[in-house]
Amino acid sequence: MTQQRAEETRARILDAAVRKFAVAGYDAASVDDICSEAGVSKGAFYHHFPTKQAIFLALMQGWLTTIDMGMDATRQDTVPQTLVHMTDLLPAIFATAEDRLPMFLEFWLQASRDETIWEAMIEPYHHYQEHFSKLIEDGISEGSFKYKDTKVAAQVIVSLAVGLLLQGVLDPHGADWAKTAREGMQILMNGLAKS
Amino acid sequence: MTQQRAEETRARILDAAVRKFAVAGYDAASVDDICSEAGVSKGAFYHHFPTKQAIFLALMQGWLTTIDMGMDATRQDTVPQTLVHMTDLLPAIFATAEDRLPMFLEFWLQASRDETIWEAMIEPYHHYQEHFSKLIEDGISEGSFKYKDTKVAAQVIVSLAVGLLLQGVLDPHGADWAKTAREGMQILMNGLAKS
Repeated sequence: MTQQRAEETRARILDAAVRKFAVAGYDAASVDDICSEAGVSKGAFYHHFPTKQAIFLALMQGWLTTIDMGMDATRQDTVPQTLVHMTDLLPAIFATAEDRLPMFLEFWLQASRDETIWEAMIEPYHHYQEHFSKLIEDGISEGSFKYKDTKVAAQVIVSLAVGLLLQGVLDPHGADWAKTAREGMQILMNGLAKS
Repeated sequence: MTQQRAEETRARILDAAVRKFAVAGYDAASVDDICSEAGVSKGAFYHHFPTKQAIFLALMQGWLTTIDMGMDATRQDTVPQTLVHMTDLLPAIFATAEDRLPMFLEFWLQASRDETIWEAMIEPYHHYQEHFSKLIEDGISEGSFKYKDTKVAAQVIVSLAVGLLLQGVLDPHGADWAKTAREGMQILMNGLAKS
């Protein structure tokens, strides 16, 4: 198997798993189901993923990596501008997220039942909170923010993002979520500018 | 069966369903499982609930009614005070929500697969958005807010609440969520005070 073919097989298994988990749920979707959906042998599956949980964690990691890449690319002149600009990422996440929604909810549902998955799920949230804490600190240094509790500010930003994502994915036509995200972040920025 | 006994049976079935859904998931938990957990006959079950979906919707409705009651009781002198005071509800919701988390996630997971459940899930969000829209309007009238898009402001508040709830329940020890909720709302209020 060439490197490229191996990559293609891996991607095909991941896509098939997303579809199967979406339709049947994580528990009900078997490795057999995923293999036949992907058109690969069980040998090929286990070459790439030792367990069903491994494929689950790989999907989550892939999703988070996409978000990380977007976040790194959005640095602007000031911290408030950076954070408002960052909300431009959300529509792209919504667009790819619609058929991934059950996936996303399954992550958390499984996390609530399985310590290993919980650890893997919660780590990136702490990572985002630290990332935003540092940004807020920069914002205080540059004179944009007067509110000083960087941890709380970061948690508020992550909470807003999580809530927007969940609602945007579950109720795509209920609002102009891109606009709500941008203005919501701007409102937060104005609030952080006060002490 | 007296009225009181009927109520007790209904409550026992609901409690048993929460536990069964939490451990096994909505799909895997059968009516038989719920009956034996509750210690009631299948006849008694079907007297109260025509289907498993009906019990699911009743659980969701019960949860939302609790929130509604809390929201109605929190009116303060000004709208910003009312909204900040409202965040005091969250710790109580977190406390009762921990064993209800899988339930909460199941609501949305099932909603993503079932139009009837989706409609039942999305309706209260629209209801909350309208409720907060009117509050924001009052806030503009009393001179507390200069930001004029009441719909967007309401969506931002609901998003923050949803994100806080989800994180508070999933990661109870990751932060002082009660403090984050209160300060986050205060930051939003300060942001809405600017145009």
